[in-house]
Amino acid sequence: MIISIESPADFHVHLRQGSISQLIVPHVRKGGFHLAYVMPNLKPPVTSMEQALKYKTDLERIDSNVDYLMTLYLSPELTPDEIRKAKNAGIVGVKSYPRGVTTNSEGGIESYETYYPIFEVMQEVGMVLNLHGEVPSDAETNVHVLNAEPRFLPHLLKIHAAFPALRIVLEHATTRAAVEAVKSCGPTVACTITAHHLALIVDDWAGQSWNFCKPVAKYPDDRQALRDVVKEGHPRFFLGSDSAPHPPEAKSVSRPAHACAAGVYTSPILLPLVAELLESFGALDNLEGFVSRNGRAFYQRPYTGKGSGKVTLRKLSERKQVESTYILGNDSLIPFWAGKEIGWELVEETTV
Amino acid sequence: MIISIESPADFHVHLRQGSISQLIVPHVRKGGFHLAYVMPNLKPPVTSMEQALKYKTDLERIDSNVDYLMTLYLSPELTPDEIRKAKNAGIVGVKSYPRGVTTNSEGGIESYETYYPIFEVMQEVGMVLNLHGEVPSDAETNVHVLNAEPRFLPHLLKIHAAFPALRIVLEHATTRAAVEAVKSCGPTVACTITAHHLALIVDDWAGQSWNFCKPVAKYPDDRQALRDVVKEGHPRFFLGSDSAPHPPEAKSVSRPAHACAAGVYTSPILLPLVAELLESFGALDNLEGFVSRNGRAFYQRPYTGKGSGKVTLRKLSERKQVESTYILGNDSLIPFWAGKEIGWELVEETTV
Repeated sequence: MIISIESPADFHVHLRQGSISQLIVPHVRKGGFHLAYVMPNLKPPVTSMEQALKYKTDLERIDSNVDYLMTLYLSPELTPDEIRKAKNAGIVGVKSYPRGVTTNSEGGIESYETYYPIFEVMQEVGMVLNLHGEVPSDAETNVHVLNAEPRFLPHLLKIHAAFPALRIVLEHATTRAAVEAVKSCGPTVACTITAHHLALIVDDWAGQSWNFCKPVAKYPDDRQALRDVVKEGHPRFFLGSDSAPHPPEAKSVSRPAHACAAGVYTSPILLPLVAELLESFGALDNLEGFVSRNGRAFYQRPYTGKGSGKVTLRKLSERKQVESTYILGNDSLIPFWAGKEIGWELVEETTV
Repeated sequence: MIISIESPADFHVHLRQGSISQLIVPHVRKGGFHLAYVMPNLKPPVTSMEQALKYKTDLERIDSNVDYLMTLYLSPELTPDEIRKAKNAGIVGVKSYPRGVTTNSEGGIESYETYYPIFEVMQEVGMVLNLHGEVPSDAETNVHVLNAEPRFLPHLLKIHAAFPALRIVLEHATTRAAVEAVKSCGPTVACTITAHHLALIVDDWAGQSWNFCKPVAKYPDDRQALRDVVKEGHPRFFLGSDSAPHPPEAKSVSRPAHACAAGVYTSPILLPLVAELLESFGALDNLEGFVSRNGRAFYQRPYTGKGSGKVTLRKLSERKQVESTYILGNDSLIPFWAGKEIGWELVEETTV
């Protein structure tokens, strides 16, 4: 079987900075994707138009064949004026991280009302608000990694009610509650789903740090809700891989009192992996909608210009092992599902 | 401050077999305990009176100063006749592991009714049934590591209703639901609580394999329920450490698709650790009840004979780091809280 997909787009990806980017950035195309919606949680975070453009130039220098959509990190430094400048410079969104919930989120936000003047201008100029939808854990109020997302949803609904024309994406949804909340919103609210959250449940990261990410994978019933909404082909749900590379030593655990980095690295195997997963729950028919059409429609990024073109997947007669490590110079990365098998591969354009 | 405790008793501990036992067994006394209720999940499991007595001899050869209470592993091999023989030989309990939920539980049970003839004789002769209270994960029915214990509780209530005079211990309770279920039962049903479940919640084992154990630590509200029942001094709740040593390489995670062993090792620091924890939530007054009196009353093991004697704890003016590794020959073990500080220490008898 052969499937052709129009210009796959990954609407949530971490491309990092420095030498490791040389390894990571080419994996966008390697994984079958033509568009990367780039997260701004660098050190220091990308908080200005200028930084974002500089970052985009860096990425293009590594691989000029990807359409990079740039974002800013929501922080007190951000002004309405900067939003207008960013919009004019082609920057697409602003990402909000609640404080301390994931990689490089120490500068994240604590209260959304503070940012209403920013949201006002974003709504006016048509920038997208990307929400990491978790509240910080708090034992006093029984907030923990498993209910941090459901507890966040009232914030989503409140911002949507205050700014009904503001396009909002709830990133990397992991719960049935999140799927239902997004469905209940108007057409300006969408939702990304990662590949790994279609695969994992809490049992999979219990004692297995390589499957640990934020938000953590939840219960089987939550995974079912994610699978169902993909199978249903709901137009406001689409892929954002949240592919988040960390070096092997940061994903390993070799002693107590040392937690591993949160993140799962899917970029280099992304399209075959998504095909494999969608096939497993009978949603292969919606592959193009999930990895390209739905997100492109929401972000108003048609299949033209840079990054346009078909990508072809072939079903394998013999399943193939995922590579165990990618190495470049002193950097190495171990992908999600390393050593496991996938029944799909990308077809080189010349061999179609 | 000085606290003296009468003959501390650990009513759930794994002492293993082979060379590693030489390191583990002396840690019972090192941790301040005079009695060890010994789990039977060896390879092969302890399923006969003869094996249990042989195992007891092995343990006594390593440290003869501990009162070892021996148990059998509930399995189809176990006969009513063997139960009678075991009882006559001084074996105290029978441990039930649902299949596949923890270390060496591949031979665990699938249905309790099968064992009613065994329970009948156990009730008659006065042996204790120790339940690992989790059902196996099953994505189809939304059973996962976080709700595996609540889903088990109907089994506890059913066995208790069928055998009201059978003494049953729900081992290592981790949830508010379990605490309430045990409270709702008659005086023949008790419950052990580990030290680490008084300390940990789910966030603590997310990405941190050294805190991963089965049952997994649950939500903050569940931990609160455990702390509350200890603080309340309920006589049917007492310490069973479930101290479960695994070599460092089995607790580490260095690659995907390899989960670490479930278990937390607390034996060598147990009494100071429990004092530290109980003090942290205002339950130090109940230390003796929790680590000695309640369990001894339930198990009918008064403070006399082998293992009797006071153990003294001193509050430190300067907190002390937990040792990072214990080594003997080729074996090494890293304890829970390695590198963290504890404000209590045992006083050597000669220095009191």
